[in-house]
Amino acid sequence: MTVQPVYPVASHTPALLRETVESGVAVLTLNRPAARNSLSKDLISDLQAELDSIARDDGIRAVVITANGPAFCAGHDLKEITAHRADPDQGRACFARLISACSAMMQSIVHLPKPVIAAVQGVATAAGCQLVASCDLAIAADNASFATPGVDIGLFCSTPMVALSRNVAPKHAMHMLLTGEPVDAATAAAIGLVNRVVPAGTERAAAIDLARRIASKSAYTVRVGKAAFYRQLELPLTEAYNFASGVMTDNLMAEDADEGIRAFIDKRPPLWKDR
Amino acid sequence: MTVQPVYPVASHTPALLRETVESGVAVLTLNRPAARNSLSKDLISDLQAELDSIARDDGIRAVVITANGPAFCAGHDLKEITAHRADPDQGRACFARLISACSAMMQSIVHLPKPVIAAVQGVATAAGCQLVASCDLAIAADNASFATPGVDIGLFCSTPMVALSRNVAPKHAMHMLLTGEPVDAATAAAIGLVNRVVPAGTERAAAIDLARRIASKSAYTVRVGKAAFYRQLELPLTEAYNFASGVMTDNLMAEDADEGIRAFIDKRPPLWKDR
Amino acid sequence: MTVQPVYPVASHTPALLRETVESGVAVLTLNRPAARNSLSKDLISDLQAELDSIARDDGIRAVVITANGPAFCAGHDLKEITAHRADPDQGRACFARLISACSAMMQSIVHLPKPVIAAVQGVATAAGCQLVASCDLAIAADNASFATPGVDIGLFCSTPMVALSRNVAPKHAMHMLLTGEPVDAATAAAIGLVNRVVPAGTERAAAIDLARRIASKSAYTVRVGKAAFYRQLELPLTEAYNFASGVMTDNLMAEDADEGIRAFIDKRPPLWKDR
Repeated sequence: MTVQPVYPVASHTPALLRETVESGVAVLTLNRPAARNSLSKDLISDLQAELDSIARDDGIRAVVITANGPAFCAGHDLKEITAHRADPDQGRACFARLISACSAMMQSIVHLPKPVIAAVQGVATAAGCQLVASCDLAIAADNASFATPGVDIGLFCSTPMVALSRNVAPKHAMHMLLTGEPVDAATAAAIGLVNRVVPAGTERAAAIDLARRIASKSAYTVRVGKAAFYRQLELPLTEAYNFASGVMTDNLMAEDADEGIRAFIDKRPPLWKDR
Repeated sequence: MTVQPVYPVASHTPALLRETVESGVAVLTLNRPAARNSLSKDLISDLQAELDSIARDDGIRAVVITANGPAFCAGHDLKEITAHRADPDQGRACFARLISACSAMMQSIVHLPKPVIAAVQGVATAAGCQLVASCDLAIAADNASFATPGVDIGLFCSTPMVALSRNVAPKHAMHMLLTGEPVDAATAAAIGLVNRVVPAGTERAAAIDLARRIASKSAYTVRVGKAAFYRQLELPLTEAYNFASGVMTDNLMAEDADEGIRAFIDKRPPLWKDR
Repeated sequence: MTVQPVYPVASHTPALLRETVESGVAVLTLNRPAARNSLSKDLISDLQAELDSIARDDGIRAVVITANGPAFCAGHDLKEITAHRADPDQGRACFARLISACSAMMQSIVHLPKPVIAAVQGVATAAGCQLVASCDLAIAADNASFATPGVDIGLFCSTPMVALSRNVAPKHAMHMLLTGEPVDAATAAAIGLVNRVVPAGTERAAAIDLARRIASKSAYTVRVGKAAFYRQLELPLTEAYNFASGVMTDNLMAEDADEGIRAFIDKRPPLWKDR
């Protein structure tokens, strides 16, 4: 949630930056620091467009999401929301579209056939916290913090909690949701919201390094595995095993598994077909 | 589980005390210390009645459940159970009603449209541990402990484990259930069974303070959010997002969200309609 | 995953050892140290046969799974898999049977009417990590480690992740699955993959001691409770309570609950009928 721009904003500055690191790692940088990188309609749309583009781009094998400025992401843009209260329907249609677009974008991260890693350099609140929770992995600066403070403005973080409550235990999620109070980076790691805490200023490099390590693996294997992970997680045990056994058998028949296993036996590095 | 009264019990002493703190916080105190606050049929019934009353009482905005005496709650009343073995059906109908009433009461906590916080001052065993697990939040004294020792008396903690296994990881739950051994407060916090450990003697005040902070927020928002939390938790991701997006849009149209967001933008405290 | 036998293997050495400790504890020892105890078709079959036998054996009340040699279990036998690439169907039918047999064996642990405790003395990778995750409880030596490194050989650990992701939080599971990197014993305990870490060399004794403590309880109660645990875990809250309430009432009518409760009231040790 954000209100007061504290930095001058040039209107031509893109709200989202995309840069490709040579190793096949795309870095998406939220770039509305003056608005604490709040997820305006346009920024959500930009993120969706980049995720869609990356999904189709064989050159990209892993994604890092990070942000410019002191905040990682302050959630929805409250000024934008308030402006729509003047609409004939008091904003309902606009709000429904906004939340729907945001939920779709978050699910695009989950469904992206490549790993997505958050590099959190500051506060991640509301939909900003949801963004971290929606990523496959997350690295936090030691001064980062996480909160779902919607309850303080009469707007419970109901969509953020979908992602949050699939990351952390119910009592931890409820404490964040009911009090709105921030948890620090160490606590976020302890409860499962982020994977690792690193010294502030090194989180971007740490996330890129992690992305690069995963990008060096068979893209086919990572794609199949990530998709299977979220699918089986929603199934009862027996169904999950039936599904995963099929995935595993297909995977065994794939060229990259043949090559990977032979390379392992021969003690040489594998040469992936699906790089 | 309890057997030997260690305190004299006056028959007119209510098994459950209710007190309202001025800020809209109701404190329910289990008051059968001589029976280690075991959940007799009558105490379950009293808890159900108070929860039903609180659900309808707009003056109450948050609930704390605590207990008198050295134990928080020792689970079911084993003497009461044993007495019913003399029934014509060896107690079956009575036991079925008892377990059913207890399960309904525990679910009433989950469904109560106000947050419920356990303040655990001593041992919480079997259904007593379930009571803690069923609350939205829990504060433990540093000398509190938690156990599901039914296995030691031939009665597996099957209903307590419904709540327990929705709080902690399977291996942690299984260790408690299969061994019956207690976990201390620090461990309970580490595994997600309680939110926070405080020095013994301060847990009631800490829980009331937490309840007061939540009670200062929009009751509408807390009610909508709590209900949505438990609902979406049981849905697959896409359905959870569809559901939560609807909740979020409705919430955005509510007076308290309009006020809360405006107050935030204006940097003033919000004036909730639904106080 | 394993390749190079580092110990001489006598062809008559059984791949799985079974020994019964006097207290009704069966110890299954993976005994292919030269192959890092990898789960060949035959070893999976041996494990299945022993689990089936133990399921029917009233003299066995708890099971410990441990291993000989420096590795606990290196997952599937990659040489065996590679040999089947020469099959007319490039191995597909064989792989499907192998994965299916392995998944069935893992589920037999979950469905075994007796607790199963892993005693992990070394590295547990891929299906070896799955074996630990599938057990009800796990004790790790302080030098044990855990990994799902299939991604490094082009074969995502899709079936292992079914068990892993039901033990630990999604971000922890994803880190192991996407990077293939090992987690040490202390981390495994912190994320819920094992219950306890003990000094190397004492894990087998610690697991047997734990098994013995559970074996001293009513076998009926443990059987009913374990089955109910995994069943209710997959149900929505209300259904879980309806199911568990029925289990609890039946349990209350059982002889061992009558005896256990009376013994507790009389302050004497219980005499279980279903020892």
